[in-house]
Amino acid sequence: MALVGPVVCLAGGVGGSRLAHGLAQVLPPGQLTVVVNTADDFRHYGLQVCPDLDTVMYNLAGLADPQRGWGLRDDSGNMLEALQRLGGDGWFQLGDKDLATQVLRTHWLARGMRLTEVTARLAAALGVKQALLPMCDEPVATMVQTREEGELDFQTWFVRRRWRPAVRSLCLAGLGRARMTAEVSDALAGAALVLLAPSNPWLSILPILAVPGLREALRQASAPVAAVTPVIRGAALKGPAARLMADFGLAPGAGTVARLYGDILDAFVYDERDAVPPLTGLRLLGVDTVMVNEDARARLARDILDWIATWRTPHVPEREKP
Amino acid sequence: MALVGPVVCLAGGVGGSRLAHGLAQVLPPGQLTVVVNTADDFRHYGLQVCPDLDTVMYNLAGLADPQRGWGLRDDSGNMLEALQRLGGDGWFQLGDKDLATQVLRTHWLARGMRLTEVTARLAAALGVKQALLPMCDEPVATMVQTREEGELDFQTWFVRRRWRPAVRSLCLAGLGRARMTAEVSDALAGAALVLLAPSNPWLSILPILAVPGLREALRQASAPVAAVTPVIRGAALKGPAARLMADFGLAPGAGTVARLYGDILDAFVYDERDAVPPLTGLRLLGVDTVMVNEDARARLARDILDWIATWRTPHVPEREKP
Repeated sequence: MALVGPVVCLAGGVGGSRLAHGLAQVLPPGQLTVVVNTADDFRHYGLQVCPDLDTVMYNLAGLADPQRGWGLRDDSGNMLEALQRLGGDGWFQLGDKDLATQVLRTHWLARGMRLTEVTARLAAALGVKQALLPMCDEPVATMVQTREEGELDFQTWFVRRRWRPAVRSLCLAGLGRARMTAEVSDALAGAALVLLAPSNPWLSILPILAVPGLREALRQASAPVAAVTPVIRGAALKGPAARLMADFGLAPGAGTVARLYGDILDAFVYDERDAVPPLTGLRLLGVDTVMVNEDARARLARDILDWIATWRTPHVPEREKP
Repeated sequence: MALVGPVVCLAGGVGGSRLAHGLAQVLPPGQLTVVVNTADDFRHYGLQVCPDLDTVMYNLAGLADPQRGWGLRDDSGNMLEALQRLGGDGWFQLGDKDLATQVLRTHWLARGMRLTEVTARLAAALGVKQALLPMCDEPVATMVQTREEGELDFQTWFVRRRWRPAVRSLCLAGLGRARMTAEVSDALAGAALVLLAPSNPWLSILPILAVPGLREALRQASAPVAAVTPVIRGAALKGPAARLMADFGLAPGAGTVARLYGDILDAFVYDERDAVPPLTGLRLLGVDTVMVNEDARARLARDILDWIATWRTPHVPEREKP
């Protein structure tokens, strides 16, 4: 496989963690930085839970539950069962081993550590060799304006209500106080490639791109920016991406995702099962984007990196980057 | 068994919970209030842990681990194992089920509930029918001045250092801001008997008696006050009671315990294996105080209550209560 240099992958939870894990299998550890959405983080029974960060971390550590895609392998639910017995809610599943992550993170944050530092410490303890960065250190929260039930916080809508209530709009609370970290800035400045993982655009990738300073840093970075579609033939493999397209009155296709990311994008990877998306000014690659197992993750990562290595001359998109 | 009326038991952890459980077996639920030491409470990884309250609560609920005397029966240690893997300390054992208690307590306290309310809610959820009260709602912490290692917080000295460092003195941090709760005050005012459980005097009973207002309330209450010895033939069944007597240069006997409680005491229960303690002005009962199983707990409770029921005429101790 041809090496392209340092890769920065922007990722959400399950889908993002699969591509991140694929990249981790084919790149030297020092060549991969994963910047993870934290807009689905929330406080649950006083614990600071970061679902996407943990999903990526557990996948990179080789400890993720292979069936569910999130949480730790071989975990138990004794705390949760006891919590329910005591009158607590059980709608958000927290395994006993997983709870150690939440307890330590909450404890370290309360002692003044930045989320970036906490994440690095947890990841290192689990043997993760790649750089794992939250999108920012400040709390940012996706709030869901539903058509029938008013505003719901993200996990209530996503987990508790199983993304059933139709969505009018989404907003990111706390964004005004957030800013890009030095670690994310350095990673983007030094990147040879930035990959937007096949995560939900609205719930994972756009929140990362919304961190003040980050989209500008992407525009100024020399690295090309490529996105991988989370949508195949108008449907998402997992989660509410297609549902949100319908709620927002958008055409249910991969091209819609590319257009959401706008002028930062140089290239787009769509699934070979799908029609070529009607996108101009973007390099396009059609490959198998479905990561059914660990080998498929590595294969997709290799396909993308090999493709990018063939770009001998710099590509100038029709709409010039500023 | 003759009923004496409402009983208030002041208790610490393992020893206290045994007598509390014995009383619970022989008294109607509405006739027993247990007031528990909270000076060994501490914050561990951000969780508010109340070891004595939990030990009594789990015993009254019939859920206590019979071997250890503390913690929940059939609990697992998966969180603790994962915590250690992540670089956390494992010296204080928190079972997975037990953790649910700590998580909910911490969460409810953070939302502004008083410890008294939190405790009532947890106990009710576990099916405890008796009134379980913390000695106060404010944080009070036993601090241990050691001869060789300076000041240690209580759990560090007791659990982590296994009460090895010799003690110069003990102090109760936070006592100035603590006050007797309305619930404790009401229980004492309505009591027909106050029992000081066979708990460590310095680490469990004296902190309760030190809560501002509580000793005065005991003096003003009409109920007689009886203490049960935690020391037999100069040795403690469990824990550092005899060790502290030696550290403090006191004679290692049951009589020393009675003298520590001072003029609030009307009666004292010593163990029948021991010599009659040289105490004047106190009613004395020598019985088997060793609670080897649940029946022995009930038997000791019954022995004490039967004895008290025989006091036909009010007893006036030599040193009059004010």
